[in-house]
Amino acid sequence: MFKKLLIANRGEIAVRIVRACAEMGIRSVAIFTEPDRYALHVKRADEAHFAGTDPLAGYLDPRRIVSLAVETGCDAIHPGYGFLSENADFARICAERGVAFVGPNADVISRMGDKTAARSSMISAGIPVTPGSDGNLADLKQALSVAEHVGYPVMLKATSGGGGRGIRRCDNPTELRAQYPRVISEATKAFGSADVFLEKCILDPKHIEVQILADSQGEAIHLFERDCSIQRRNQKLIEIAPSPQLTPEQRAYVGELAVRAARAVNYENAGTVEFLLSNNEVYFMEMNTRVQVEHTITEQITGVDIVREQIRIAAGLPLQYRQQDIQHRGYALQFRINAEDPKNNFLPSFGKITRYYAPGGPGVRTDTAIYTGYTIPPYFDSMCLKLVVWALNWEDALDRGARALADMRLQGVRTTAPYYQEILKCPDFRSGVFTTSFVPNHPELLNYSEKRHPSEIALAIAAAIAAHAGL
Amino acid sequence: MFKKLLIANRGEIAVRIVRACAEMGIRSVAIFTEPDRYALHVKRADEAHFAGTDPLAGYLDPRRIVSLAVETGCDAIHPGYGFLSENADFARICAERGVAFVGPNADVISRMGDKTAARSSMISAGIPVTPGSDGNLADLKQALSVAEHVGYPVMLKATSGGGGRGIRRCDNPTELRAQYPRVISEATKAFGSADVFLEKCILDPKHIEVQILADSQGEAIHLFERDCSIQRRNQKLIEIAPSPQLTPEQRAYVGELAVRAARAVNYENAGTVEFLLSNNEVYFMEMNTRVQVEHTITEQITGVDIVREQIRIAAGLPLQYRQQDIQHRGYALQFRINAEDPKNNFLPSFGKITRYYAPGGPGVRTDTAIYTGYTIPPYFDSMCLKLVVWALNWEDALDRGARALADMRLQGVRTTAPYYQEILKCPDFRSGVFTTSFVPNHPELLNYSEKRHPSEIALAIAAAIAAHAGL
Repeated sequence: MFKKLLIANRGEIAVRIVRACAEMGIRSVAIFTEPDRYALHVKRADEAHFAGTDPLAGYLDPRRIVSLAVETGCDAIHPGYGFLSENADFARICAERGVAFVGPNADVISRMGDKTAARSSMISAGIPVTPGSDGNLADLKQALSVAEHVGYPVMLKATSGGGGRGIRRCDNPTELRAQYPRVISEATKAFGSADVFLEKCILDPKHIEVQILADSQGEAIHLFERDCSIQRRNQKLIEIAPSPQLTPEQRAYVGELAVRAARAVNYENAGTVEFLLSNNEVYFMEMNTRVQVEHTITEQITGVDIVREQIRIAAGLPLQYRQQDIQHRGYALQFRINAEDPKNNFLPSFGKITRYYAPGGPGVRTDTAIYTGYTIPPYFDSMCLKLVVWALNWEDALDRGARALADMRLQGVRTTAPYYQEILKCPDFRSGVFTTSFVPNHPELLNYSEKRHPSEIALAIAAAIAAHAGL
Repeated sequence: MFKKLLIANRGEIAVRIVRACAEMGIRSVAIFTEPDRYALHVKRADEAHFAGTDPLAGYLDPRRIVSLAVETGCDAIHPGYGFLSENADFARICAERGVAFVGPNADVISRMGDKTAARSSMISAGIPVTPGSDGNLADLKQALSVAEHVGYPVMLKATSGGGGRGIRRCDNPTELRAQYPRVISEATKAFGSADVFLEKCILDPKHIEVQILADSQGEAIHLFERDCSIQRRNQKLIEIAPSPQLTPEQRAYVGELAVRAARAVNYENAGTVEFLLSNNEVYFMEMNTRVQVEHTITEQITGVDIVREQIRIAAGLPLQYRQQDIQHRGYALQFRINAEDPKNNFLPSFGKITRYYAPGGPGVRTDTAIYTGYTIPPYFDSMCLKLVVWALNWEDALDRGARALADMRLQGVRTTAPYYQEILKCPDFRSGVFTTSFVPNHPELLNYSEKRHPSEIALAIAAAIAAHAGL
């Protein structure tokens, strides 16, 4: 097993990896840039190294990070999610310098990062994909012809795109003609590649993704699915495992597809295969070659520690579980508590956390890097806490979610927590049957009034008096 | 279901009950005495009522509490553990006033609280008990005769005793002659009854207890066992579920015995049947007619919310689970974090919590009523936090325990946490095979040095500078 592991990330996922290292007896090494000097991942890691004053650059420099790992005697690097986690060069440099990269090899990262190459791999493996162009589009004429063939509406997508950027929906030829040059221009600027492709737009789908684990011996298993249909502008808000809206047959089917996808590309490490479900049809969307934000809920229902398995696989160990060992129990929900103001168009609400008290008791898990007195810097994403709840059945899990959200104290910034309370009360959500249209179709859920807790009001008054008195 | 429930308790168990009520849509009513004015159970309950200036009296007055419940429109009372939870009069007064008592009826509480009556009930039901006197002892002559018959050493016990008090071990007739009047005197003073009985002393046993649930329809199931062998002077320190040292056959056997015990006394609600195991023999010790401190670990391995079930049963609902629905998965350990100084003979360390940061991440649960700035009052017990960890296998659960203990920040008072870190490193504990002699046999585990975290030292220095500068 590794002796020392560098974490090329920050925030809650860096803390998550520190915890896995601590449990495995591996020394953890954090890196941090200026705004993260007092970050929790720095406090909790066994070692921490300054990576520069620029808030972001230090987390995004593959050569420098790998050199730091070598200099500090690390035999492995965990990239977390975001930042360099899906950067094939980073994986390649790690391999060149003899540092284990906790993730798949550079070739697989490249292939899955190139959306048309990923589509081709899946078509070869017999995985259903959305009807669309056979590879990148040559020109607008081909785009119009493919769109006519598969039927409008279509999605025009940047081949190297991701995170919901470089994607436009076109409902007719006029729109396609207008968007074609725009997407090419956007793709060139944002991703450094003018390649675009086209897919039929799957209307009102369910977003279902399957967690897989595959080792260097060629074994691959799945850990069941997550339902990520509750999203806003392609950003997931609440994730659920397993999906409350799949039949056991559908569950087995998507699990089997995901394992087949992993085997088809000789996948190694943890990964996620994302599908769209519509009218009982399943379409491959993309494969994420890293740990996901929402891996937590799969851990809750299966008991498997996914980060530990990632590290074990990177160290060359075989999977400790066979498919039949993996059982799911109960329902888990993850609420992404973002420092955003839902009532103000989800505007980020960065600033100082004046009070944070973690919810506790049965079936509650938190993953966060915040603490009372911590200031959320404006340079990174706005997710500040992952609240996960679990219960044996769906209704109890929902009620536990409402309780845990109410139990938590997080003051000083606006968060999405009160909005999630509204979602939890909504019969369309409680029914367990919904699509990615849930959030746009329920704007009324933003019409809540912010009830402040009496103790919070008392504190605010006391603070005002103290300030006035110059205390 | 109940509309409003009064919680006749304080501390973490009161918070636990508030949470169950919140999840069930029941309004919760807290009571508090003067030192608990700023207690978390008061802050978190929907309503809170002052129960007097005396720290303890308000929690121990059955008539006044039941009257308060009636006056505030409560239809149920949950007694928690300790205080009035095993007071038959309290249950009787509840019944008289038409308030549901969340626990068994007064007769069962009385019978199980009377240790010789409980022994008789178990003997009638064919449950093995330790060899001993047939009911209370008439006099010293009978005591000597029974002791001669069962063999020394023997335990002389107050019939109404509990909590490790009113119990003396006698290794020979001389000791029995000396202790007999002392135990009678102690029992009279402490429990208001001079009744004593005698049992053979089971040397070096394992303490195994089984969680049961029984409803008003006569159904009874068990939720597997807990191993509470890690104790000091009859006070449990670390509890484990399931026991790592039972065979599946032993597990099935003690489970079946516990259900038989429950049925024999027409038990209703949650309860715990405690056994001693020695040389593959099982002996009934006692039945606790309330929720236990360590119910948490059973919740972790089975997924069943025991407090919710207690409330459902008290409302007359049938059990929602049959025996075959109850599965156990993985291992859970509970660390009772007490505000005590292990290096100073476990002297209580009451005072102000200057900093509390809850551990988080996978497989970690906390139940506590402390918060940063909270002062632990000296009038109640010293347990200030229950840290529960869970993992799919025993070794991982141990490593997760060490990680979570290190992850937590609890400053301002001394706690048992560093001592538990030593226990977690001890090969005799990690082996999973131990008896109630583990703690007395390992005094060397107290020889740890208190390593303070660098950030803690920095804070202490900063505080000293600030104090000096008059900031």
